[in-house]
Amino acid sequence: MRIHVINPNSTVSMTDRIGRTARRAVSAGIQIDLVTAHATPASIEGYADEALAVPAMLAAIRAAEARGAAAHVIACFDDPGLDAAREVAAGPVLGICQAALQVAMTLSVRFTVITTLPRSVPIIEDLADAYGVGRRCRRVRAIDLPVLALEDDPICAERLIAAEIRAAQAQDGAEAVVLGCAGMAELCERLSQETGILVIDGVTAAVRQAEALIGMGYRTSKLGGYAWPRLKAGGFAPEAA
Amino acid sequence: MRIHVINPNSTVSMTDRIGRTARRAVSAGIQIDLVTAHATPASIEGYADEALAVPAMLAAIRAAEARGAAAHVIACFDDPGLDAAREVAAGPVLGICQAALQVAMTLSVRFTVITTLPRSVPIIEDLADAYGVGRRCRRVRAIDLPVLALEDDPICAERLIAAEIRAAQAQDGAEAVVLGCAGMAELCERLSQETGILVIDGVTAAVRQAEALIGMGYRTSKLGGYAWPRLKAGGFAPEAA
Amino acid sequence: MRIHVINPNSTVSMTDRIGRTARRAVSAGIQIDLVTAHATPASIEGYADEALAVPAMLAAIRAAEARGAAAHVIACFDDPGLDAAREVAAGPVLGICQAALQVAMTLSVRFTVITTLPRSVPIIEDLADAYGVGRRCRRVRAIDLPVLALEDDPICAERLIAAEIRAAQAQDGAEAVVLGCAGMAELCERLSQETGILVIDGVTAAVRQAEALIGMGYRTSKLGGYAWPRLKAGGFAPEAA
Amino acid sequence: MRIHVINPNSTVSMTDRIGRTARRAVSAGIQIDLVTAHATPASIEGYADEALAVPAMLAAIRAAEARGAAAHVIACFDDPGLDAAREVAAGPVLGICQAALQVAMTLSVRFTVITTLPRSVPIIEDLADAYGVGRRCRRVRAIDLPVLALEDDPICAERLIAAEIRAAQAQDGAEAVVLGCAGMAELCERLSQETGILVIDGVTAAVRQAEALIGMGYRTSKLGGYAWPRLKAGGFAPEAA
Amino acid sequence: MRIHVINPNSTVSMTDRIGRTARRAVSAGIQIDLVTAHATPASIEGYADEALAVPAMLAAIRAAEARGAAAHVIACFDDPGLDAAREVAAGPVLGICQAALQVAMTLSVRFTVITTLPRSVPIIEDLADAYGVGRRCRRVRAIDLPVLALEDDPICAERLIAAEIRAAQAQDGAEAVVLGCAGMAELCERLSQETGILVIDGVTAAVRQAEALIGMGYRTSKLGGYAWPRLKAGGFAPEAA
Amino acid sequence: MRIHVINPNSTVSMTDRIGRTARRAVSAGIQIDLVTAHATPASIEGYADEALAVPAMLAAIRAAEARGAAAHVIACFDDPGLDAAREVAAGPVLGICQAALQVAMTLSVRFTVITTLPRSVPIIEDLADAYGVGRRCRRVRAIDLPVLALEDDPICAERLIAAEIRAAQAQDGAEAVVLGCAGMAELCERLSQETGILVIDGVTAAVRQAEALIGMGYRTSKLGGYAWPRLKAGGFAPEAA
Repeated sequence: MRIHVINPNSTVSMTDRIGRTARRAVSAGIQIDLVTAHATPASIEGYADEALAVPAMLAAIRAAEARGAAAHVIACFDDPGLDAAREVAAGPVLGICQAALQVAMTLSVRFTVITTLPRSVPIIEDLADAYGVGRRCRRVRAIDLPVLALEDDPICAERLIAAEIRAAQAQDGAEAVVLGCAGMAELCERLSQETGILVIDGVTAAVRQAEALIGMGYRTSKLGGYAWPRLKAGGFAPEAA
Repeated sequence: MRIHVINPNSTVSMTDRIGRTARRAVSAGIQIDLVTAHATPASIEGYADEALAVPAMLAAIRAAEARGAAAHVIACFDDPGLDAAREVAAGPVLGICQAALQVAMTLSVRFTVITTLPRSVPIIEDLADAYGVGRRCRRVRAIDLPVLALEDDPICAERLIAAEIRAAQAQDGAEAVVLGCAGMAELCERLSQETGILVIDGVTAAVRQAEALIGMGYRTSKLGGYAWPRLKAGGFAPEAA
Repeated sequence: MRIHVINPNSTVSMTDRIGRTARRAVSAGIQIDLVTAHATPASIEGYADEALAVPAMLAAIRAAEARGAAAHVIACFDDPGLDAAREVAAGPVLGICQAALQVAMTLSVRFTVITTLPRSVPIIEDLADAYGVGRRCRRVRAIDLPVLALEDDPICAERLIAAEIRAAQAQDGAEAVVLGCAGMAELCERLSQETGILVIDGVTAAVRQAEALIGMGYRTSKLGGYAWPRLKAGGFAPEAA
Repeated sequence: MRIHVINPNSTVSMTDRIGRTARRAVSAGIQIDLVTAHATPASIEGYADEALAVPAMLAAIRAAEARGAAAHVIACFDDPGLDAAREVAAGPVLGICQAALQVAMTLSVRFTVITTLPRSVPIIEDLADAYGVGRRCRRVRAIDLPVLALEDDPICAERLIAAEIRAAQAQDGAEAVVLGCAGMAELCERLSQETGILVIDGVTAAVRQAEALIGMGYRTSKLGGYAWPRLKAGGFAPEAA
Repeated sequence: MRIHVINPNSTVSMTDRIGRTARRAVSAGIQIDLVTAHATPASIEGYADEALAVPAMLAAIRAAEARGAAAHVIACFDDPGLDAAREVAAGPVLGICQAALQVAMTLSVRFTVITTLPRSVPIIEDLADAYGVGRRCRRVRAIDLPVLALEDDPICAERLIAAEIRAAQAQDGAEAVVLGCAGMAELCERLSQETGILVIDGVTAAVRQAEALIGMGYRTSKLGGYAWPRLKAGGFAPEAA
Repeated sequence: MRIHVINPNSTVSMTDRIGRTARRAVSAGIQIDLVTAHATPASIEGYADEALAVPAMLAAIRAAEARGAAAHVIACFDDPGLDAAREVAAGPVLGICQAALQVAMTLSVRFTVITTLPRSVPIIEDLADAYGVGRRCRRVRAIDLPVLALEDDPICAERLIAAEIRAAQAQDGAEAVVLGCAGMAELCERLSQETGILVIDGVTAAVRQAEALIGMGYRTSKLGGYAWPRLKAGGFAPEAA
């Protein structure tokens, strides 16, 4: 059984970190099919980066299904192209934002999200609203570092995230914190121990939920919104291999 | 590793059916600790039945934690006492309604819930709103049979559910259907094959999500809303064994 | 004509204070049938305390109807078991939170609620949302004292509440303040005079609204959500005496 | 103690009917100060009729306060000028729509409103949303008769309302029905008996709630949104007499 | 082609300033038919001022249509009588609040509104909610000066507005600022240059949108909510001249 | 002055029809810079078609700015890539769905949208919710014809749309109808005359609003969500030419 984990940006070192987290999360016997999207932006910081990343990501999803992937995880907290991915895939597709927020809803009454740049704050707020958890998400905070700084200066990044976690507890009444960037996944456990607060990482959440959905035997509904694409010039083939 | 599955009503034959579904859903190596609540109503059809079932159910959760349960599933679609259960437990607590709706959000854009009695319709609508999926839930339909009729006249029940599933597709534009009663769980696969629509059962969804959460190593946040009960006469002990 | 006022916790001294407020609120000729719930938690601070209090409270409601009570007031600001109570009663059932928020909606455009412990904040926020006044409730504040400290150290409690009332006006733009605990009822008038702001107490609000509803001759609808419980082992009798 | 009941339209026969209902609703010892607005539209059917009625209605409220009215009821289901009335009054001001919807929220889980003309449907829907009960109001139905036809052809009107009540139960799952026009108030009891459904009339609801608020000793908050008007040419005096 | 711009308050100097902004905003060839409402309050600060201004404003709209106005702009940020105006007019009617918020939705993801008195804050918040942009409006701020102080002490007013604009960016994460009073219109460009933030003025927005709607050839729908008033004593004529 | 109108799909005949509508809508002196996206799907019917069209569309927007376009219109009713387009552009960017819904909000209280395929129904419903007009949009209806059938069998398409318009009035209480596909734009006037209902076309609405925004001198805010993209491999240049 294989779960396809796609990093929609083109930074391989970030894919590696996502892969380490995904492999630690998954049960024995499940394989992680880890892919870096081809020729997409080096990081996803805003709507345009998302848009540029999605076509290659959808192609990767199709290719992974052809290789036998039973489910897919989009490892970027903006959940870029999530609906489109569900349309072109037979297996379940998990976004790490939606997966993390569903976990946060299950383990806490109020939580805060911590992301990288301030420009991502309204993007994540709108996702939380679209997923129906806006009322429960106290606040989306930003550490004001770019995504790749998580790799370039991990010590500074961790210190800033820890400070925001403490502020989330003290000022927002947050009972849990969601890490709002795939690049933060590896810090999750340490941040939780350091701050004493439940810290939730979307990569872990999505991979485990993908595994759960495979286990349920459910696949994406092919009626209505997620029906196969219609055959047309310039479009995807109507059905995955 | 053990997952505690509690039937909050006192009908043992219904517990048995829930248990069969739960055991089929779970991975090898995970044990289902199956419990029927003690001296609660024979079925849960409305707010008062819920209220009468909850104290015994909470006691069962405490007892299961003492026996080593790592997570809990409340196997009644009204999710009775879900918040209270999270307060008295260390491990994650899943309600089958919330779990099923989270799965439906992941696999479809619009869905319908089918339940037993019309009196449960506003209850489930309010749950869907509280869980933030009200916009995506097209409708809550009722077959107008009591819960225990699912056991007493399963053929009639199945025929009525199938008819509502077809109506959900034709009239509501539902892309998936959620079975709105734990007693319907065993029918899920057959109804799906019969109607050609994705049918989602909350017992399966909750058990698999419980397993996923155990795998993530997350536990219920003990800050804020789900903090341990405070020590007092007539209350629960502040911490689970 | 009798109005049944039930304190869902088992602290008799708190019942006495509620009773004094209720009796001052009611018109001549209306009797207050004042009851302390039997063997419930000593105070209600969180979901589990609520859950443990409800069955005894429902039994008290049934007993009060048998003694001729025309309406019921649940004197705890979490409105524990409010829907279930309406299901088992013929007469109107008022929760002090819903009643106070309805009054606040009538007398102000924006208001703040002040409660005891921080753990109750999300509970009251969710009630405000469920009652449809979330947009108008600026904030739920907590004085961070347990419920019974209102009795044990009333001077400190009153000082803390007054400080939060002033903060509500200065920081939240609150035009009125709702006292978010039945144990605060007796302080209402003094706090209002002291701070110069409209302070609303739910016990008074609910008792007067109960009297109003009796006067209208309306009773709880027995169609749909609040229909009598269905006859079953372990459940309530289908109809109140 | 006096409650001022103002009919914002200028049809005296309608005021008379409202007055009969108000006087039947009120406790002994409370006087109804019944007023017909001066030179306003003959009935209120739409936004422009509302707008034309409000200045005279506000003047009537000021005059009634000068005569000693302790509270005010605006007896038109569109609640015209409700916020403005609260601004110019010291005593509580009740709108019959808001009052009726608050009663419906207390006695049922889902309800339907029945009004006169289809043009009033979105007006009442928007009020229900603004009052926070949109989720609980199943539907606003219209009998497609003008307001004054309730007087001119009462038999036809009653038959049409009864038909809509039955449709509300059968098609909407309504557990209670709110009469969406002050002119329907006198039919309330008979319609309830005829259809076996709880039927709620806003005049009764508002008068009794006004009485309840007087009993609580609360007055409109004079901070923020309902603060006294500021002194200016063409405006109201800053304080009621 | 003429656009009718009505100042609902009776302060002619304010009309003049509105007129200067409107004439600068409009294309060559479009005439501004500028009107001061007759005998209305000197400024609009609260619900009662609004209510007193509307009947004269509606009469002005009717008169302007008779003079050939193709569209109407209500130049007060509370959008007083907007729905009623649409009912009595054939041409499109623009409110400067709704128009400005629609522009803000198009040019930014999150914005803040800055108004005059704190009493207007909940009024504008409620408008933003009713127009569906509540989620995107970060905050409504007040400079705590009366409307006419914008004329009496323009230097102080401008300084206070600039300070709130800077606070909106720093504290609210506002990406744009909407000026929440017609009297601020002339300051728009200077404030934008001074602060470096996009500042949106509703008079400009509404006049240009009125021109756009005229160009589209659309008129107000005369079905349902905005249907012509019905003929009656004390009401408007059913159709505009 | 130039307005760039981009057809995100690659069907040139559809671009031509959009161009005819756009040129008819615009004022003399404004040029329409009409572009067909390069190598995108032949029509946009679902999330995946949208995703595949966006990168080429964003490139077209950048190219058009370099040619001097002052504003942009995305001529597809799903508003694909609208936020990303605003991020990469200096001038205002209008989506025909958002523009049409803003017009519908101004001219009616309740409206219905009519689109092509049922699979687009939830997409448009979600847009309406995100734009804050979900409450006012009665329903999204589909004629169940693919987008290109509007060209291949225009007579059938027009008949089906007219039938849905009539159903929208009769069954939904719609006061206006929005055409939910750029390919329907040319039918707008004829459908309005045929049915007697206000019919709104998004191409006309967006082009005129673009012109209005140019006239106001406003440009997209470059703070926060729509800030220029950050410089990175695989991303857009940080600033438009």
